[in-house]
Amino acid sequence: MKFTAAQIAFFLNGIVEGDEKIEVSSLSKIEEGSPGTISFLANPKYTKYLYNTHASIVLVKKDFLPEVPVSATLIRVDNPYESLAKLLKMVEQPYQHKLGVDKLASIDESATIGKDVYVGSFSFVGRNARIGKNVKIFPQVYVDDGVEIGEGTVLYAGVKIFRNCIIGANCIIHGNTVIGSDGFGFVQPTGTNYNKIPQVGNVLIEDDVEIGSNCSIDRATMGSTILRRGVKMDNLIQIAHNVEIGENSIIVSQVGISGSTKIGKNCVIGGQVGIAGHLQIADGVKIGAQSGINRSFTQEGEAIQGTPAIRIRDFQRSSVIFKKLPQIQQDIIQLQKDIHNNNNSAD
Amino acid sequence: MKFTAAQIAFFLNGIVEGDEKIEVSSLSKIEEGSPGTISFLANPKYTKYLYNTHASIVLVKKDFLPEVPVSATLIRVDNPYESLAKLLKMVEQPYQHKLGVDKLASIDESATIGKDVYVGSFSFVGRNARIGKNVKIFPQVYVDDGVEIGEGTVLYAGVKIFRNCIIGANCIIHGNTVIGSDGFGFVQPTGTNYNKIPQVGNVLIEDDVEIGSNCSIDRATMGSTILRRGVKMDNLIQIAHNVEIGENSIIVSQVGISGSTKIGKNCVIGGQVGIAGHLQIADGVKIGAQSGINRSFTQEGEAIQGTPAIRIRDFQRSSVIFKKLPQIQQDIIQLQKDIHNNNNSAD
Amino acid sequence: MKFTAAQIAFFLNGIVEGDEKIEVSSLSKIEEGSPGTISFLANPKYTKYLYNTHASIVLVKKDFLPEVPVSATLIRVDNPYESLAKLLKMVEQPYQHKLGVDKLASIDESATIGKDVYVGSFSFVGRNARIGKNVKIFPQVYVDDGVEIGEGTVLYAGVKIFRNCIIGANCIIHGNTVIGSDGFGFVQPTGTNYNKIPQVGNVLIEDDVEIGSNCSIDRATMGSTILRRGVKMDNLIQIAHNVEIGENSIIVSQVGISGSTKIGKNCVIGGQVGIAGHLQIADGVKIGAQSGINRSFTQEGEAIQGTPAIRIRDFQRSSVIFKKLPQIQQDIIQLQKDIHNNNNSAD
Repeated sequence: MKFTAAQIAFFLNGIVEGDEKIEVSSLSKIEEGSPGTISFLANPKYTKYLYNTHASIVLVKKDFLPEVPVSATLIRVDNPYESLAKLLKMVEQPYQHKLGVDKLASIDESATIGKDVYVGSFSFVGRNARIGKNVKIFPQVYVDDGVEIGEGTVLYAGVKIFRNCIIGANCIIHGNTVIGSDGFGFVQPTGTNYNKIPQVGNVLIEDDVEIGSNCSIDRATMGSTILRRGVKMDNLIQIAHNVEIGENSIIVSQVGISGSTKIGKNCVIGGQVGIAGHLQIADGVKIGAQSGINRSFTQEGEAIQGTPAIRIRDFQRSSVIFKKLPQIQQDIIQLQKDIHNNNNSAD
Repeated sequence: MKFTAAQIAFFLNGIVEGDEKIEVSSLSKIEEGSPGTISFLANPKYTKYLYNTHASIVLVKKDFLPEVPVSATLIRVDNPYESLAKLLKMVEQPYQHKLGVDKLASIDESATIGKDVYVGSFSFVGRNARIGKNVKIFPQVYVDDGVEIGEGTVLYAGVKIFRNCIIGANCIIHGNTVIGSDGFGFVQPTGTNYNKIPQVGNVLIEDDVEIGSNCSIDRATMGSTILRRGVKMDNLIQIAHNVEIGENSIIVSQVGISGSTKIGKNCVIGGQVGIAGHLQIADGVKIGAQSGINRSFTQEGEAIQGTPAIRIRDFQRSSVIFKKLPQIQQDIIQLQKDIHNNNNSAD
Repeated sequence: MKFTAAQIAFFLNGIVEGDEKIEVSSLSKIEEGSPGTISFLANPKYTKYLYNTHASIVLVKKDFLPEVPVSATLIRVDNPYESLAKLLKMVEQPYQHKLGVDKLASIDESATIGKDVYVGSFSFVGRNARIGKNVKIFPQVYVDDGVEIGEGTVLYAGVKIFRNCIIGANCIIHGNTVIGSDGFGFVQPTGTNYNKIPQVGNVLIEDDVEIGSNCSIDRATMGSTILRRGVKMDNLIQIAHNVEIGENSIIVSQVGISGSTKIGKNCVIGGQVGIAGHLQIADGVKIGAQSGINRSFTQEGEAIQGTPAIRIRDFQRSSVIFKKLPQIQQDIIQLQKDIHNNNNSAD
């Protein structure tokens, strides 16, 4: 399928600068662009590639000023990255042919299956499970007894969802993620051996949530572990029992959040952050990568980093000085000598 | 199923304070309690919720003194959390109906299958594998050639156990955990390309071990990677080849333990801790979250934290001062000026 | 199968010291060696075990000088670890009997399947997928539409490879690793809700790459996420969209590499390291465990550590002083008093 610059500009409400009739059939990165492709310039770090790209068309910001002439045709838009997303969404619909319940799927007769679903080979749907319409369940997925999957949700290959968990509409859950494994709870009646606390709650995921691959989201001891509407999670993330994540919060890969902690709305949690249990994180808090959070942060929109985390500016300032610690130590020894000498000379 | 306060108190050997005849049919968290549910108060942080909870019954400590009157019926017990566990265990037995070998499982004819097992759809049991009685193998599990699974063990959906690994009795292994993937061992004969060291050992897991979801436990190069009796592991944990974990040690999520390291008994390893290879950690050592361990700790019961780890009290004290480093640097500059001035004035 | 010391020495081009006719039938660790086994001594830390080992044969370095007499027969070789690898490779070929396409596999009729492949039970091979000769696909593997698998590659149980990804020859991918899940990319048109950026690229893995279990390697937004020839990755690693890893680089477990970062050749990245997005790491750079990399490192072969990472020597020196911060603070207070007193006495 080919599109002209004029057609794309019309679709994106953009302005063509160059050859309106030039055609493209696929997409490329600006630093690798080849003829017949469309690319985009969103991050100014990549501006240098624009001047040599072989992409036929490049999406740029409305007010972008090239420093030297550009051979590619430009389409000026408000937000090139967002326009790209629109364009990709129009072009890319890779799994449309996956429809129907495969004859090698195992579906309990008590399960409810909506219209126009896909259930791939070797997937299992248990007792009284309810699968909404337009759901896509890829091969080798496990949907346990009593699970509900909302309309339009996609479960990629290898996802495992355990008993009574509830997934909202239009969610995307990537390969091999586990939802509803037992929370980590034990008692030590005698001080040595541990007895398991049965985990009888579930996981409740609202609409429009996306969860990456190989994540672990534990069921609540009682009640629900909750991901609110619009939460976006990257890969390899640990969510412990009874955690709650507020609307539209972003969690980058390899984060671990311990039991019963509540994260506010619109938070951004950087990669490999660890958060202790039973804490509160206010709305809009931003946590720098690899931070360790051992207390609640109740001020909205605060930016923090470090282990234990402090305000991000303090972290950055102290980090710069960290590598000067040997010098600081020497300075102090010198000062001690100097004072000692002064004292002596003053005697 | 409903129980009265009197019945529950009898079962838990507790004392009722309030309405002995009040009935409950399910469980709730104290901050969300609703009529007809039983809740518990173990962590003093949650005491405030007791006074307003709508739970009908709350388990509290024998010596708990409410500050204001409580409308819920109380049951006084020695250890509310432990009593809850007992109660949950009595009530919650969710997978009892899962029994028998599914016709869509693939079981090698040389495998030995015990009595009263469950082998779910799309699970594979290889050559000469031995499955003990009362084992539950959920769907999509892989049990490779020569694997042994002890009596009463549960393997949740998606677990993969590779050749010759041995799992004890009454273990629980959560979804998508991999046991017996190759250890990470290579040689560089020419200094550039790596050649693989075949990993011919196995993983040996003793009785009563619980392992969370999405963990990776590598087989030994030779001999065994060993988890001793009663070890409890959370999710997303990496155990490298030839590691050994002592009895009843607790490992929180996202910990990584490198090759050939030996962890003692009754240790507690916090979330996201990393431990280098070929080290010894003594019995009862407690390692704070996110610590990096680059040497052996041979003193029993020591508490350590940091990267590299130091005694936890030292870590906490130094961490407080870390954010004052800019001030410290300024103080030193000021001191240097002051001394310089003193010297000059002393001249 | 038994081998004499003489046979093994001949195979390894080594020199026997002791009983040439002694036989061994399996391998052991030096600290656990039992009669009838062969062991090796590569790491000098383990030398002490040599003097008491019950292993019948031990591989040692050509120039090794025992301090006391050794009862085991020694075979002197250039590199004991490498010789061990050779030996293991000869001995250990555990999955040779796994051949043929299982009748419980689901293979699209448009897929191309090479000679002498193994496709295990409950594995799925999608439209137009191409499987090279001698490939081993274990049970419960997902090979999506348009995927290519090169000759001799092994995909262990539970691996999921999504659409259009390309895997080279002689690769090994361990259990439950996910290749080609969507990159983590969103736009916020209104500042609150996130819209997904479709991820239309793929993952390209060259020959001789080994990837551990439970790893997540995301597809590129456009173009390819690339692992070059000979890359070796441990378990539970996160590789984000559009990352590129250079030839023969080693990545230890639980590392996370953010979007569009380029890692050079022959790098070694320690466990639990996090690397921010859009960075360049030069060839041969060594990154200490748990480091956080927030800027490019362009000097070849540099060794760095810390969060944020600095030269490893600086990190080590400053780390030693970190625990003395309380003392440093006190020294400064004392100095301030001393100067104050001096000033007063000088008045």
